[in-house]
Amino acid sequence: MAAADRGPEPTTPAASGLVERHRETLDRALAALTDRDYWSPYPEIPKAYGESAAADGRAAFDALLGRPFELDQPGADGETGEEVSPYGPVLGVRYPHADPEALVAAARAAQPGWAAAGPLTRAAVCLEVLARINARSHEFAQAVMHTTGQAYGMAFQAGGTHAQDRGLEAVAYAYAEQTRLPRRAGWTKPQGRRDPLVMEKTFTAVPRGVALLVGCNTFPTWNGYPGLFASLATGNPVVVKPHPRAVLPLALTVRIAREVLAEAGFDPNVVTLAAEQPGEGLAKVLALHPEVRIIDYTGSSAFGDWLEAHATQAEVYTEKAGVNTAVIDSTDDYAGLLNNLAFSLSLYSGQMCTTPQNLLIPRGGIATDQGDKSYDEVVADLAAAVGALLGDDARAAAILGAVVNPGVAERIGQALEGGYGELALAPRPVAVPDFPDALVRTPALVKADAAKPDDEATFRSECFGPVSFAIAVDSTADAVELLRSTTREQGAMTAAAWTTSPEVEAALVDACLDAGVSLSLNLTGGVYANQTAAFSDLHGTGANPAANSAYCDAAFVAGRFRTVEVRRHA
Amino acid sequence: MAAADRGPEPTTPAASGLVERHRETLDRALAALTDRDYWSPYPEIPKAYGESAAADGRAAFDALLGRPFELDQPGADGETGEEVSPYGPVLGVRYPHADPEALVAAARAAQPGWAAAGPLTRAAVCLEVLARINARSHEFAQAVMHTTGQAYGMAFQAGGTHAQDRGLEAVAYAYAEQTRLPRRAGWTKPQGRRDPLVMEKTFTAVPRGVALLVGCNTFPTWNGYPGLFASLATGNPVVVKPHPRAVLPLALTVRIAREVLAEAGFDPNVVTLAAEQPGEGLAKVLALHPEVRIIDYTGSSAFGDWLEAHATQAEVYTEKAGVNTAVIDSTDDYAGLLNNLAFSLSLYSGQMCTTPQNLLIPRGGIATDQGDKSYDEVVADLAAAVGALLGDDARAAAILGAVVNPGVAERIGQALEGGYGELALAPRPVAVPDFPDALVRTPALVKADAAKPDDEATFRSECFGPVSFAIAVDSTADAVELLRSTTREQGAMTAAAWTTSPEVEAALVDACLDAGVSLSLNLTGGVYANQTAAFSDLHGTGANPAANSAYCDAAFVAGRFRTVEVRRHA
Repeated sequence: MAAADRGPEPTTPAASGLVERHRETLDRALAALTDRDYWSPYPEIPKAYGESAAADGRAAFDALLGRPFELDQPGADGETGEEVSPYGPVLGVRYPHADPEALVAAARAAQPGWAAAGPLTRAAVCLEVLARINARSHEFAQAVMHTTGQAYGMAFQAGGTHAQDRGLEAVAYAYAEQTRLPRRAGWTKPQGRRDPLVMEKTFTAVPRGVALLVGCNTFPTWNGYPGLFASLATGNPVVVKPHPRAVLPLALTVRIAREVLAEAGFDPNVVTLAAEQPGEGLAKVLALHPEVRIIDYTGSSAFGDWLEAHATQAEVYTEKAGVNTAVIDSTDDYAGLLNNLAFSLSLYSGQMCTTPQNLLIPRGGIATDQGDKSYDEVVADLAAAVGALLGDDARAAAILGAVVNPGVAERIGQALEGGYGELALAPRPVAVPDFPDALVRTPALVKADAAKPDDEATFRSECFGPVSFAIAVDSTADAVELLRSTTREQGAMTAAAWTTSPEVEAALVDACLDAGVSLSLNLTGGVYANQTAAFSDLHGTGANPAANSAYCDAAFVAGRFRTVEVRRHA
Repeated sequence: MAAADRGPEPTTPAASGLVERHRETLDRALAALTDRDYWSPYPEIPKAYGESAAADGRAAFDALLGRPFELDQPGADGETGEEVSPYGPVLGVRYPHADPEALVAAARAAQPGWAAAGPLTRAAVCLEVLARINARSHEFAQAVMHTTGQAYGMAFQAGGTHAQDRGLEAVAYAYAEQTRLPRRAGWTKPQGRRDPLVMEKTFTAVPRGVALLVGCNTFPTWNGYPGLFASLATGNPVVVKPHPRAVLPLALTVRIAREVLAEAGFDPNVVTLAAEQPGEGLAKVLALHPEVRIIDYTGSSAFGDWLEAHATQAEVYTEKAGVNTAVIDSTDDYAGLLNNLAFSLSLYSGQMCTTPQNLLIPRGGIATDQGDKSYDEVVADLAAAVGALLGDDARAAAILGAVVNPGVAERIGQALEGGYGELALAPRPVAVPDFPDALVRTPALVKADAAKPDDEATFRSECFGPVSFAIAVDSTADAVELLRSTTREQGAMTAAAWTTSPEVEAALVDACLDAGVSLSLNLTGGVYANQTAAFSDLHGTGANPAANSAYCDAAFVAGRFRTVEVRRHA
């Protein structure tokens, strides 16, 4: 046994077809992780799925409504389901409710077979799950739209193909990580004149244990798939606990996963759904279960911090809340800046963890290709850009989506009443023809002054939803320091800046490296601070209080499995 | 910007010489991580270091005794140092004691410069530190011998060159992990008939923050270097808190690291020593400091579990206690089995976290190349093999070392009084000519019966030191289940087994994969269950209660840094 064994990995008869089908996609994904160039196997254009696909997806979605959701899994002890579309309709889908002990026990029982499958087979099964989800992207778009309030086009991309990208990225990272050690290696140690010591060693990835996915309301798939597929691909069974307002996209995901698992000869309880009764607090119960060894969570900082402090038996991956800062120092494309930022503030009504909240503008104004602009001019021009972008109701609705929950509606109301400060741009109602009950409002832009302690107390807190602050600062240097301190203290998922000065750029980069936030510089085209692309951009850093991990890097998968070695004389 | 940038990494003038000097060693280490074949740049044979090296090392060690240890670091507020050699002599080295707040503040202040150095420069600085430690291996051997009680030859290898191997391994893993993303990459996304979106992206590894190393008594360097060098190589400053009985090896390490850092143009406070006053409980104070973001710990389960539960602001890497099991089913080399196991039980008086404790032997006996052997015969033959191995006092002393602390001495006394059960082999005193005060005893072998609840209660607990249990079990199948359950419940750093049956072997491998412990099979030569080789064997798995991490895998380094991205239009 001389050389390390990295040849083809054995698979099982039932799964070998899947390996054959998905091997090339996996290989391309592995290359993409390293290159970081644009790549996706899942077309993001709705038309690519065929002429009838949209209507078929709509019909499939409609067929789910107002009835029990079929999911043959253990421990069922009742029904639950309270989803109401942010666009108005009551979904009426009734999910099986299960005893959490039964779900954990079923997951634990399913684990050995899944663990024994090995990294390649698991990757192939995951890719088949993603492929089937992809084929149903229009149905998922409906499900995401009517649970999150994302407009259809965004639900199709962010909730559909881009979420699939992030899932595939996690599978590829998991496969790469589990195959860094050879399956088998020889070891020969010289012993002077005596015979050498010769050993044969095998290395096997073993799963950590039952994983828990705690889904969120706004991005059940995009924020859920990285953890779900990272845990699955590393051999862990996953109990999926969706947000009560956004069950359907993850319930569909679980059902598809269970189908593929069963067809490939595995126990379908490798993936189960833990839909909860209103007020049940199921996430807490599951998170503290001693058999739960991995937790992925997206949501409020309060519960994320609680998980990190209390679920110490588990590896906990959190994405929580933050306050995202944008620094506006100078630009050679003023119109591009305004249009780009206006879109970032408007997309999904600012209900993204990545939406810029605090826009820092020197009170002495900024230099632009259209001449110097005072603070007031920048604010007015930005308000006008948002107004222009959202001037047409149909277009506005396609960008804004609907208000996801009463908390956001309340903040819009507070903004309208001047509760956050003077409005540079007041929210206005947008009518959505098909959904008269949908609550859709253009964003609020609030004027603030960094020198005023009351203002600072307001803008230093997260104000989730379509409320941003145009904050006058004494200088760009002060803006950079405010970016740094806000990120260090409140956390941030994104930072953005516009400057033509190399010195300012260097100071911004320093501040972002120090505070641990990724920076989008001088975006003036079709890339936005609040969007990241799988296989290239990292989502979050794990280096500031907004998240303890990132989508997707090696650290996101490396702790989900361990390696057991067996050695013997060769 | 088409392709990902993986060219040579820039370095600083002061450090470029170090990069040149150590680049080849780093490259060979990186290859070794992947191949897992035998490799080391640090000769393990004492003679390789020159004729006068041993005497020079002894003289250097003697010159340290009975005086203040020079270490110019901030926050000094007194002296401490209570070390007494397990071989008898009082060391009398007085270390500066420092205010922990001052150490953390100094580390925090040193961080930005070290973070900015980048992975390659940091690796080179670490390799220079290791090279200087290696050149002083004889001095370190004295320091390790007289703090841990390891015999000189073992102190030279396990405390010297093998510890250096583990440190280098951690540096190589850290470098590999930090360079998996390109420093710079292009991203081009087609936009149909419109111009593509073209972005340029940079990825920078940023440190997590101040690291704390909590050293142990028995292996201050071997168990300390992986965490120390993993944290350093990923850009984190490290506060080193040695065990009060084993300060000197880590104090020397810190002094050398500070010298190299200063010479290379870095703030030496990247590494500081936190020697503690008796009863100060400094590890707890430092572990809960909000600026401490990484903790490496080796020691008792009680404190390791406390760290995992309470130091939730930090990434915590622990190696704790366990109960290691060996299964004796059958063999085609009975003499080899006995000699191999006798050595494992004797080495360093069983004071290794890897020493087999519970030897499971079917009560109906085992098949061997020397005919069937009854349980009693196996026990008697093993006792005889230990007796023969340690029959000569000089040879025995060179294998056993000295008893490290009063807890171990107490357990030897308890064994002699029959407190653990009937003795198959009673400890006997071994005289060490140069050190008449050294407490050296041959191991105790205690007979036990798995069917007796009292016996089981005894052998299911860790009995750290030279006390092993020869446990009669009803069958090999029972032995495999006992291995599994003991490992799952008590944890284990190692498992060993001897069998000629493929079925038994398969059951053993299954049990070890399930319980999460690495297995040494049929060792009958010069490789022992309680030893692992860097670059090839993993030490621990992190998959059972004895440890939450392993030396050394990607998971051991991946969480010690985060990645910050900066992107802009190309």
